[in-house]
Amino acid sequence: MRIESTTNQRVKAVRRLHRGRERHRTGRTLLEGPKLVETALDAGVVPVEVYTDAGGELVRRCEAAGAQVIETDRKVLESIATTVEPQDPVAVLEVPEQPGLDSERLVVLVDISDPGNLGTLIRSGAALGWQVALLRGADPWSPKVLRSGAGAHFIAPPVPISNFDEIVDAGYLTVALVVSGGKPPFDIPEGRAVALVVGSESHGLPEHIVSSCDIALSLPMVGAVESMNAAVAGAIAMFAMG
Amino acid sequence: MRIESTTNQRVKAVRRLHRGRERHRTGRTLLEGPKLVETALDAGVVPVEVYTDAGGELVRRCEAAGAQVIETDRKVLESIATTVEPQDPVAVLEVPEQPGLDSERLVVLVDISDPGNLGTLIRSGAALGWQVALLRGADPWSPKVLRSGAGAHFIAPPVPISNFDEIVDAGYLTVALVVSGGKPPFDIPEGRAVALVVGSESHGLPEHIVSSCDIALSLPMVGAVESMNAAVAGAIAMFAMG
Repeated sequence: MRIESTTNQRVKAVRRLHRGRERHRTGRTLLEGPKLVETALDAGVVPVEVYTDAGGELVRRCEAAGAQVIETDRKVLESIATTVEPQDPVAVLEVPEQPGLDSERLVVLVDISDPGNLGTLIRSGAALGWQVALLRGADPWSPKVLRSGAGAHFIAPPVPISNFDEIVDAGYLTVALVVSGGKPPFDIPEGRAVALVVGSESHGLPEHIVSSCDIALSLPMVGAVESMNAAVAGAIAMFAMG
Repeated sequence: MRIESTTNQRVKAVRRLHRGRERHRTGRTLLEGPKLVETALDAGVVPVEVYTDAGGELVRRCEAAGAQVIETDRKVLESIATTVEPQDPVAVLEVPEQPGLDSERLVVLVDISDPGNLGTLIRSGAALGWQVALLRGADPWSPKVLRSGAGAHFIAPPVPISNFDEIVDAGYLTVALVVSGGKPPFDIPEGRAVALVVGSESHGLPEHIVSSCDIALSLPMVGAVESMNAAVAGAIAMFAMG
């Protein structure tokens, strides 16, 4: 199939996925550029549709795996992508089913609203071996968060939770990351599942969540600047707790 | 003074500072929002001009310290700011003089071109007590980098260098951060100044820099994702080396 009009009904439907509400309604999202599409494919997640003006080996792999390939031109690619200079191809994806909480190391992200920070934390969790749970915050499957995640979504999909009690009730040792006043990072006791709880860029963790945690942890800072970016602090805490 | 026209010559001159070339030519940059302006003032860096439509205590402090205050309206603020919804005030600043290399812990950032990553690394360096040196990469005093730096520029100003040999010749123990194949992080030997060298998001460090370093260091990663965001990896390495 070939489409060259930006007002084509299918093209319009893809463009609507720029909006969170439409992604939520359809259960679909956009995946942009060869690296993300390849990581998804490698993880067995096959796009529904692949828009391309260049074709090539990756697009053929998508087609062989069951994706519908739509040949198009630069103008249409630019209209459906969320980046100013989109990389070929742009794919439509059904958001994969959410896994359950099954790791001994869990990082719980609370109210992380910056897409870059959220994607970076998902990426760091996957690299450091921590499962990621999400309480509120930005849409983890938005194109921006997928971009910052650099493919980690497909290797270690984030798990949305609706209430912090789910973590407490599941028996995790809960550790709140706070800017100051907490213990330094410690080695996780053998045989105990740990949930590291990280709050938002601007407001930190809600007080009721800090007080329902077993331990508060703070990173020792030696410099004159008193706080770090939330994504950096969360990653250092994961690293430091091994 | 009050200005309400977006075509006023002074307003146009401020707007030209959005461009890197103009910042370079004038030695000036833009500082947006109360947090950054306050951090600059606290560090003794007084803006040249402060544009405001709300006035208030911070603006009075700027004026008392020698800044020229220009009262204006929302429309002008939006035209001079680089954010879509600018925070009051927007200030014009002379980029402070660059300090020399004087720390026992130096992180050298090579070709970091993403403004968010660059600002975040400057912020992490300041929080963790590492001086930041810059070899090429994005303009460290651009409004975007200042925003990600969250005020760290004024507490620990980054030091531009023009050649990696400056670091080698200064006698630092040079440690290249590489994705894999390096040693795990180690405690810095007593009495030895260390330069941790961090490369770009997309290409890592140039081979000739890695080979001129004394040691290569890699972060142990346990997950299935093989790399982390450059700003996160750099911060973890600084943290891990104490």
